[in-house]
Amino acid sequence: MEDRTYTADAEPGDTVTVAGWAHELRDLGGIAFLIVRDTSGKIQVKFEKDEMDDDLVETGLNIARESVVQVTGAVEEEPRAPTDVEIVPEEVEVIAGADPELPLDPSGKVDADLSTRLDNRTLDVRKPEVKAIFEIRAEILRAVREYFRSVGGTEINTPKIVATGTEGGTELFPVTYFGQEAFMNQSPQLFKQLMVGSGLERVFEIGPIFRAEEHNTPRHLNEATMIDFESAFIDHNEAMDVCEGTLHAAYQAVEENCQEQLDLLGYDDFAAPEEDFPRLTYEEAIERINATGELDEQLVWGDDLSTEAEKALGDEIGGHYFITDWPSEIKPFYIQDYDDDPELSKGFDLMHPRMELVSGGQREHRFEALEEGFEQQGLDPSQFEYYTKMFRYGMPPHAGWAYGVERVVMTMLDLDNIREAVLFPRDRQRLSP
Amino acid sequence: MEDRTYTADAEPGDTVTVAGWAHELRDLGGIAFLIVRDTSGKIQVKFEKDEMDDDLVETGLNIARESVVQVTGAVEEEPRAPTDVEIVPEEVEVIAGADPELPLDPSGKVDADLSTRLDNRTLDVRKPEVKAIFEIRAEILRAVREYFRSVGGTEINTPKIVATGTEGGTELFPVTYFGQEAFMNQSPQLFKQLMVGSGLERVFEIGPIFRAEEHNTPRHLNEATMIDFESAFIDHNEAMDVCEGTLHAAYQAVEENCQEQLDLLGYDDFAAPEEDFPRLTYEEAIERINATGELDEQLVWGDDLSTEAEKALGDEIGGHYFITDWPSEIKPFYIQDYDDDPELSKGFDLMHPRMELVSGGQREHRFEALEEGFEQQGLDPSQFEYYTKMFRYGMPPHAGWAYGVERVVMTMLDLDNIREAVLFPRDRQRLSP
Repeated sequence: MEDRTYTADAEPGDTVTVAGWAHELRDLGGIAFLIVRDTSGKIQVKFEKDEMDDDLVETGLNIARESVVQVTGAVEEEPRAPTDVEIVPEEVEVIAGADPELPLDPSGKVDADLSTRLDNRTLDVRKPEVKAIFEIRAEILRAVREYFRSVGGTEINTPKIVATGTEGGTELFPVTYFGQEAFMNQSPQLFKQLMVGSGLERVFEIGPIFRAEEHNTPRHLNEATMIDFESAFIDHNEAMDVCEGTLHAAYQAVEENCQEQLDLLGYDDFAAPEEDFPRLTYEEAIERINATGELDEQLVWGDDLSTEAEKALGDEIGGHYFITDWPSEIKPFYIQDYDDDPELSKGFDLMHPRMELVSGGQREHRFEALEEGFEQQGLDPSQFEYYTKMFRYGMPPHAGWAYGVERVVMTMLDLDNIREAVLFPRDRQRLSP
Repeated sequence: MEDRTYTADAEPGDTVTVAGWAHELRDLGGIAFLIVRDTSGKIQVKFEKDEMDDDLVETGLNIARESVVQVTGAVEEEPRAPTDVEIVPEEVEVIAGADPELPLDPSGKVDADLSTRLDNRTLDVRKPEVKAIFEIRAEILRAVREYFRSVGGTEINTPKIVATGTEGGTELFPVTYFGQEAFMNQSPQLFKQLMVGSGLERVFEIGPIFRAEEHNTPRHLNEATMIDFESAFIDHNEAMDVCEGTLHAAYQAVEENCQEQLDLLGYDDFAAPEEDFPRLTYEEAIERINATGELDEQLVWGDDLSTEAEKALGDEIGGHYFITDWPSEIKPFYIQDYDDDPELSKGFDLMHPRMELVSGGQREHRFEALEEGFEQQGLDPSQFEYYTKMFRYGMPPHAGWAYGVERVVMTMLDLDNIREAVLFPRDRQRLSP
């Protein structure tokens, strides 16, 4: 529709054609108002019954809510209208009539449970505040990619159908690939590492990952969009710098470019974090957690951090923070240990007070140490030969990390459920739409 | 490595630490040269045997090719060096020694077949001309996203594990999803359509698609990266405008920002197309193909275009072109037909002289017509209820299209095989790496 005007751009004095959804119809007797909603906003259309063509009024008053309509008319100032302007219609066309029985009310006046909303995502994302979440999500992706490019990263795409998982056969969805057993990839980990050993050196990928985890919680998804970064010739500290850089960039971009969306979501005090994220060692972390007195049992060195432990520390710190220098045994085999203390790894996590966001670290780049790691993990290195053999031909020291965009959206916007941050979630119960 | 200098930035007078791969070692007797390659380029390191520390010379002369090395020293002007400068080393460290038996020669002096290259992609992408392809690919993705945003598109991510395929059960890879039968999605088609009916109205996605096609040809992949676009309130002509816009933007971006990569690939005359792409109706296309006299048998209305037919027309036109107004019966059911001629559809293809790139069209947005289309296709509409039911609640007229980034890279850079345009291709034979 080349002659379409967005409702937000309709100025008094113009004659415009707008197109959108019938958001609401208010019949006050002699006068009736149709509110037309499009992606830019809403506009009021006035029907004066005695002064307008009967057919036009008839059409206007019989429009079912959420029908797609097209209205042509003069735009006039009207201080009593929601946007201070209204259209006096000359022509009204119902392009696609809606069934009057809506499974979901996009005006938001009637609450719907999450399951109904996800079953009817088209109607759900007509709500401006739901749409706002996905506009913010898109802005985060834009900002993160821009940041990666500013530090010399090259975007890559790695395969999602793979012969073997990153960490063995657990939590993988099996695929039948031309009669062969294959899997949906749970992480680009091994592939991005292969690329830091190539001439690209520094790479990023934003794409889907698949995890057959049994968890069905408000913060787990079985298919998520992962932001992966990996770079040659950096260590875990520099990797944390880049990680922090992407998140600062994302928050700043949302603050600068999504004020309208933040307003819709009710964030009048959204502020991008300006300070550096504190970096605690694992040892410091467990000491501080124990000192909170929030846990029934004191943590000892070697324990993984429970949700309660993370919460206790997160409440105290009150913002993002890194935990570094983890015990080797609770980090994956491809994370490098300190040379002077093999019990201590160069892995790190980035935490938000509500949950873990990032896991990363310096990787093991030495062939012999890597093969040993596979064996210690109970994995057969020969199954991963496509990966390990490249470590025999000059693999540089490297580090990297990954985070799911859904967790970033969820924590940034303080959403209750991660399913609010993905259009069509996949979980144990949900495979459709 | 915070004190690392890229080889391309080493200036005479500096003392630098460079890190990269041992590209070549030339021992001329009293003097030897080590060429260090990193992502930015190469630099020469000079070993004067009689004037330098014996251990340093010993280390330098025993470096196996493709080992990862770190060299610290003074940069001096040297007109005989490949980049007019060289490093006089003070310290040389082998960070990761390479096995002297390389499966592939990244210097490119020894040819390798494609299969060997793909098995050893890490080494292969050390070749600057291979790396250049993937840098150009990344630039195309950047430019296309930027174009989408300039026309109001919102980036979305749709699920890759789905209950039903876009066009029924053919050519789908089955996945076991918590005991249920599911599939890898062959296209975001249905999901992006669901989103144009939401408040987002205009959406794009760049992500993987999976097709269990039996084809094993130089232009087919079983997993590809698709660029998808869909918008409410536009018709097929406006969808073609956006499609053309993305490709013009991609070519221009490559011309402006990838000159170094184009030089490496030997394109001294790369020029972004400046003209609009011609738009031929299907009827005009078959007439012109018949007129070439290249085909053994004349095409008649209703025939699909064979590879030979496309080639005959492509050779004549010599650049990108659209074919519009296809017979309805050879286009998918979700493409809308002309109201005044139901034999004729509003589908279109964008052709490159070498192959089809894009397929798109105006979609059927009317619930009844869509259900009829499902049935005519022999599909059970109830299986797609998650999709069709949204058409009962105000689905706007809409249009869109999709193309694979690999075909764009392949045609833009005149690559022989589509596997040159993807880091880790998936085909009937290849599932690893």
